[in-house]
Amino acid sequence: MVLVAIIMGSKNDWEVMKEAAETLQRFGVEFEAKVVSAHRTPEFMVKYAKEAEGRGIEVIIAGAGGAAHLPGMVASLTTLPVIGVPIPSKNLNGLDSLLSIVQMPYGVPVATVAIGGAKNAALLALRILSLKHPELREKLRNFMEEVRSEVLSTELRL
Amino acid sequence: MVLVAIIMGSKNDWEVMKEAAETLQRFGVEFEAKVVSAHRTPEFMVKYAKEAEGRGIEVIIAGAGGAAHLPGMVASLTTLPVIGVPIPSKNLNGLDSLLSIVQMPYGVPVATVAIGGAKNAALLALRILSLKHPELREKLRNFMEEVRSEVLSTELRL
Amino acid sequence: MVLVAIIMGSKNDWEVMKEAAETLQRFGVEFEAKVVSAHRTPEFMVKYAKEAEGRGIEVIIAGAGGAAHLPGMVASLTTLPVIGVPIPSKNLNGLDSLLSIVQMPYGVPVATVAIGGAKNAALLALRILSLKHPELREKLRNFMEEVRSEVLSTELRL
Amino acid sequence: MVLVAIIMGSKNDWEVMKEAAETLQRFGVEFEAKVVSAHRTPEFMVKYAKEAEGRGIEVIIAGAGGAAHLPGMVASLTTLPVIGVPIPSKNLNGLDSLLSIVQMPYGVPVATVAIGGAKNAALLALRILSLKHPELREKLRNFMEEVRSEVLSTELRL
Amino acid sequence: MVLVAIIMGSKNDWEVMKEAAETLQRFGVEFEAKVVSAHRTPEFMVKYAKEAEGRGIEVIIAGAGGAAHLPGMVASLTTLPVIGVPIPSKNLNGLDSLLSIVQMPYGVPVATVAIGGAKNAALLALRILSLKHPELREKLRNFMEEVRSEVLSTELRL
Amino acid sequence: MVLVAIIMGSKNDWEVMKEAAETLQRFGVEFEAKVVSAHRTPEFMVKYAKEAEGRGIEVIIAGAGGAAHLPGMVASLTTLPVIGVPIPSKNLNGLDSLLSIVQMPYGVPVATVAIGGAKNAALLALRILSLKHPELREKLRNFMEEVRSEVLSTELRL
Amino acid sequence: MVLVAIIMGSKNDWEVMKEAAETLQRFGVEFEAKVVSAHRTPEFMVKYAKEAEGRGIEVIIAGAGGAAHLPGMVASLTTLPVIGVPIPSKNLNGLDSLLSIVQMPYGVPVATVAIGGAKNAALLALRILSLKHPELREKLRNFMEEVRSEVLSTELRL
Amino acid sequence: MVLVAIIMGSKNDWEVMKEAAETLQRFGVEFEAKVVSAHRTPEFMVKYAKEAEGRGIEVIIAGAGGAAHLPGMVASLTTLPVIGVPIPSKNLNGLDSLLSIVQMPYGVPVATVAIGGAKNAALLALRILSLKHPELREKLRNFMEEVRSEVLSTELRL
Repeated sequence: MVLVAIIMGSKNDWEVMKEAAETLQRFGVEFEAKVVSAHRTPEFMVKYAKEAEGRGIEVIIAGAGGAAHLPGMVASLTTLPVIGVPIPSKNLNGLDSLLSIVQMPYGVPVATVAIGGAKNAALLALRILSLKHPELREKLRNFMEEVRSEVLSTELRL
Repeated sequence: MVLVAIIMGSKNDWEVMKEAAETLQRFGVEFEAKVVSAHRTPEFMVKYAKEAEGRGIEVIIAGAGGAAHLPGMVASLTTLPVIGVPIPSKNLNGLDSLLSIVQMPYGVPVATVAIGGAKNAALLALRILSLKHPELREKLRNFMEEVRSEVLSTELRL
Repeated sequence: MVLVAIIMGSKNDWEVMKEAAETLQRFGVEFEAKVVSAHRTPEFMVKYAKEAEGRGIEVIIAGAGGAAHLPGMVASLTTLPVIGVPIPSKNLNGLDSLLSIVQMPYGVPVATVAIGGAKNAALLALRILSLKHPELREKLRNFMEEVRSEVLSTELRL
Repeated sequence: MVLVAIIMGSKNDWEVMKEAAETLQRFGVEFEAKVVSAHRTPEFMVKYAKEAEGRGIEVIIAGAGGAAHLPGMVASLTTLPVIGVPIPSKNLNGLDSLLSIVQMPYGVPVATVAIGGAKNAALLALRILSLKHPELREKLRNFMEEVRSEVLSTELRL
Repeated sequence: MVLVAIIMGSKNDWEVMKEAAETLQRFGVEFEAKVVSAHRTPEFMVKYAKEAEGRGIEVIIAGAGGAAHLPGMVASLTTLPVIGVPIPSKNLNGLDSLLSIVQMPYGVPVATVAIGGAKNAALLALRILSLKHPELREKLRNFMEEVRSEVLSTELRL
Repeated sequence: MVLVAIIMGSKNDWEVMKEAAETLQRFGVEFEAKVVSAHRTPEFMVKYAKEAEGRGIEVIIAGAGGAAHLPGMVASLTTLPVIGVPIPSKNLNGLDSLLSIVQMPYGVPVATVAIGGAKNAALLALRILSLKHPELREKLRNFMEEVRSEVLSTELRL
Repeated sequence: MVLVAIIMGSKNDWEVMKEAAETLQRFGVEFEAKVVSAHRTPEFMVKYAKEAEGRGIEVIIAGAGGAAHLPGMVASLTTLPVIGVPIPSKNLNGLDSLLSIVQMPYGVPVATVAIGGAKNAALLALRILSLKHPELREKLRNFMEEVRSEVLSTELRL
Repeated sequence: MVLVAIIMGSKNDWEVMKEAAETLQRFGVEFEAKVVSAHRTPEFMVKYAKEAEGRGIEVIIAGAGGAAHLPGMVASLTTLPVIGVPIPSKNLNGLDSLLSIVQMPYGVPVATVAIGGAKNAALLALRILSLKHPELREKLRNFMEEVRSEVLSTELRL
């Protein structure tokens, strides 16, 4: 069953966002990935956001760049947790994307991760899903342990 | 007949945006002013933006602060020209508002003015309306002449 | 039962963070609030973060300012979702806090909200908790409906 | 008849600005394109800006980079709507261009688009021209519909 | 004889710019101070800038804020050295003014001083004038000596 | 005997940090270099930081990028002087790293050097070590003399 | 015996810098405090910096604001460790001071602390002095323990 | 006779600064070009700056990057006009260089040009020298006329 929706404002964002997909895949969590543009398909976005919960989606990951309105708009149309991924932009390197996503006004939160942080968006989704799906928490613990071991075994050479 | 819609994301923005209203009033252009929040009334915003043209609106002025999505979202739902006013925000002084409004992706333009530039938003609306309402162009010329005279007669004293 | 931990780097942050507490209270969600400093009580922080899940905490909200390390460090010591609130800082208005919290490297995500966005941090926690506690989702829907009504009934006057 | 003037501060800006030309061409709107430098040909700029309206120009699109004075100066010499395009600059990536164009003082508005946003400048010009030339509005609707379809038919693959 | 012209975009800038006037007065250099707005009196600005040299002006000090075009435009219309003073702006504290003044393209230089640095603008004018008026160099030496003595005699107390 | 610990948050940082190692080597100071991640090995970091002094380490050089918590966290767990090196980050070029390291709150200082300034971090460590190891001060004097000579003998040619 | 020199570019900086003095006093470390301006007393600065080591000074704390050259210049004239304190500046809140101090080129390091971080500058000086004066390390441990206790005993109340 | 000194902090800056040299050469003004480092040759810099006027130098052009102290320090040691060129820096693209040069405190002005603006620095020097050497003013007029013609004859083609 699809638990996570990965959406993004443009096909070009897939280069970054597919890292979220790969991470979810690695954890065995089903997802769907779709281009949903706040600016080019606003009404489809409304429909998509409103229907997500009813279709069983539990977390939405939304990536957008520049004047990045997708995560905030989707969050305004659902009560599901929405994770925003600021896509690096051509001229301002994603600082515009970050501020457009994170600086949401009172009432509608977006869980923002780092510029280009699609992998972490997936890991955040997994932390959230763990509340209801405890087997994921175990996998997360193992993942953090693996990462830890990898760091500890690193050798540096001049 | 109402030619200009002045909308804004929150009642607090009215402090800034009413300068647009006062400027239009001074030029004898009818307008309506309304709080339309992209995040708190997303569906009303869609309806409002889609119906604006049919109701005879010719230009929309939209003010918003922080993660300022209103101008861009409205522009995505109409073919009317949309003027965006970045409202000064509490912590980042409107730099977030500016980037959220101006950095729109290809396909949906927003005519952005200065941070807090509601007066200029109205003057830009008037320049646009002049294409169809030539009497406004004459008024704009007079206005620029007045402003010019005012500057030229300024005296400075140590 | 305490489901949410609200922690912050300094007593001064309480002025901002108590809005998270008030919001949770309004939704009838039990929480604890505590000063846990990454820099002044690092070992207590480690202990606190590691024990949180075992004590039944399901979401951690962490506020910090300047070189804001608390949210990221806590996230590195638990698999619970951690929400970071950048506290406005004296000289850089929270831009340093925001970047210190949101720009986490691969492996350890922090769900970052706006600078000073403690209320939204609580609302995000509620969205997350709704996965497991469906009665909260209903309350969130009502809250969004109230906010919507409030906006729609706003009158503006010149 | 030429309805739109596309001007820019330097020949190098043509790389960006020709996208505005191509977009207008696609919509069948006649335009002229010219290098008019605020700093290197100030008096020609004055003459050009003052005569534009008389020559039938209805909208001016002005691109400039760095200390970008062309859009604002032209706007001060005409009552036509002036659209400013911040050209990406070598060291500051167009942040200087953006602020130099958008932060105009009361009295003289410039309709600013995104850094490098020449295509959107043309689309904004088309929205403005639609007030007087309704056949363009129909074309804009078709354009937005095309863009919408394109997005909706996008397939993503891991 | 008037050697220095102090011009500024708005009467409000006089608060900052009068410090340039006071500094010149202290050194016994005659000046004129005038509001000359690039945006509200563009043609007067052209005339003023072109005639300055003929009237015996040797240095122009120009202050402007926000999208600050005055110094650069004046510099494009004269071969006199032009000193630009970025006036602190309301929302961006003069960062916009600074970039609008200093980032001039090849061909037209503006000698930019600090944000709000009107006193230093006068001192820079004096250094420039010293090339032709050596008595000023002696006064500058004395001034620097006074400043030095003042610093050296400062006492600090806990 | 190892006097300096060079630690960094990720193996990728070694590219930058090895310049610190090479500089210490050139001065004949023994060091150890190790990946110690605040986020991926938080408990190992605590242990490492607490034991450093007991193992004879006199200065710690810590490099980290993005939300760079390593230098500040290590400084909170030892009384040794900790030198922080902001590693250039992918999207924000190290501005995030710099602010995350330097903006430490009262109580826990980090001696921050330039973005990417690993060589200078080593030179700062040497200045500090010179208090106790006067032979290093002599070497530093010679180094500065060499650098001076090198600059003075530079020839420029058109 | 005076071990620490606290210097600053202007008498106004004393408001910030005296916190360094008070902290050293609290730890029983003798210091001298003096206005030494890189720009207004450059030759005195050279003399002061060159003689510091010979007079028994072991650490120099230098505060400066805006184009803050004092810490870097002093560091270029001594082999003592120099700690730089960026003083908050009027318009840019110390961001200019921070970059002017921390971004030193290869060869001359400055140990930079937070904007306005004079207290931490003193604590850093104490960490450095501890290498040679072990009794200070014990005092630092006690200080960190006190700070820890203070945080742990904090009570928060809604 | 050498009228202009072109100095820079590092040999690498010559790549940028030689454009100043070439421009002076084109105007037939003699200059000398030299590496003078504020940080690596501070005492030579003092000597150089103090002797410049006596050697007949009339304007100094100083380029520096990062924590760019050379222009301001030289200005503090002479009464000659000093023109500062912010060299683009590796990580912050010269924003640090710009702020370090332009934000000088009261008493010591630096005539700052654009980041990387070495050509304009030379043109500014020529404007200043024209006060005393009127033949240069004629050449500047011709230069501006050439630049003007070049712009006016530019053709753009789709």
